[in-house]
Amino acid sequence: MKKIAVILSGCGVYDGAEIYESVLTLLQIAERGAVSQCMAPNIDQMHVVNHLTGEEATGESRNVLVEAARIARGEIIDLATANAQDYDALIIPGGFGAAKNLSDFAVKGAECQVNPDVINFTQAMHKAGKPVGLICIAPAMTPVLFGEGATCTIGNDADTAAAIEAMGGKHQDCGVNEIVIDSERKLVTTPAYMLAGSITEAASGIRKLVDQVIEMA
Amino acid sequence: MKKIAVILSGCGVYDGAEIYESVLTLLQIAERGAVSQCMAPNIDQMHVVNHLTGEEATGESRNVLVEAARIARGEIIDLATANAQDYDALIIPGGFGAAKNLSDFAVKGAECQVNPDVINFTQAMHKAGKPVGLICIAPAMTPVLFGEGATCTIGNDADTAAAIEAMGGKHQDCGVNEIVIDSERKLVTTPAYMLAGSITEAASGIRKLVDQVIEMA
Repeated sequence: MKKIAVILSGCGVYDGAEIYESVLTLLQIAERGAVSQCMAPNIDQMHVVNHLTGEEATGESRNVLVEAARIARGEIIDLATANAQDYDALIIPGGFGAAKNLSDFAVKGAECQVNPDVINFTQAMHKAGKPVGLICIAPAMTPVLFGEGATCTIGNDADTAAAIEAMGGKHQDCGVNEIVIDSERKLVTTPAYMLAGSITEAASGIRKLVDQVIEMA
Repeated sequence: MKKIAVILSGCGVYDGAEIYESVLTLLQIAERGAVSQCMAPNIDQMHVVNHLTGEEATGESRNVLVEAARIARGEIIDLATANAQDYDALIIPGGFGAAKNLSDFAVKGAECQVNPDVINFTQAMHKAGKPVGLICIAPAMTPVLFGEGATCTIGNDADTAAAIEAMGGKHQDCGVNEIVIDSERKLVTTPAYMLAGSITEAASGIRKLVDQVIEMA
């Protein structure tokens, strides 16, 4: 039975992992008869956003691993303790958490840095020849994680695409119900809520991504 | 196009709405071509639970509506402002939030009280002849919301079933992939994570519940 690592970046689209993308990923992994293991870095979130108002909740502080545990129903491990040899593939859902907690792309753009635990685990998976799927804004980390020339999509947002190209990545426009495959690197990406207008639209691309990643694993 | 009200009770199984149940409900509503509107009471949670450790986060306080907005991507309204005539049906997912925030069943059992906004909206829907679906532990509110003799399921937990019967409800054992229908009251219930061992098991019953509620609407 294939075992898929899923890196979560908190719990909630504006300061953490996008919840629908995360659940749709876990659902499709299970529907395909594979098992998932959620993991997250044990760090503070960049900030907390009140999802009712969209405003920053100043003075509040939350931990990425603790909040991600809400999505995982407590079944989650510290990313720093995860061992690549235990898994057949890796998927990272989106949400601003990928650009605020797993990296600082939301603030720094093309000058972004990626969390060391994310780099270590993802590159260990990649070096072992295992497929990686990145969803929504998570593909903005592609050039840092996979080096120059790696092909990905974040949909069709021109500024984000330009930042990825400035970092040495290759961006390919893609519809919400499609995926982009870098076969050489076993890297699969899909826009999801970078473009989705509904949960069914997000689901259409995520199902294809999960199927492709599992097929490559 | 049928419009389904969904009452959320926070964000996270141990102190709020169960995330998988909530997302699976919203997904199935969309898959069936209906639209959903999330809503939640604007009250403080009973408490906050650290979902990594399972321990109460003492001294922390969170608002049910603000946290539920994470599941709804901000597209949520205060339950007190919701008007039953705007909706064709109502579904309430589970999670401890249904027994800690929407009601105090988790603390008081058969002596529980239900939040007044939940009572007002649910009974307005019911009196207008509109179907209501309750998932997981949410059916424990059945006798308060629908009166004596209303039939529901929370799976097969003997203590919870006995509390429902003590409140005047009728409990019927039910498998995780099945639903219980009280045709007279247009009330549909399913155990979901009262029994589910996996997200696909939870999905099997929730899909049937959503389909049945939409068919009755």
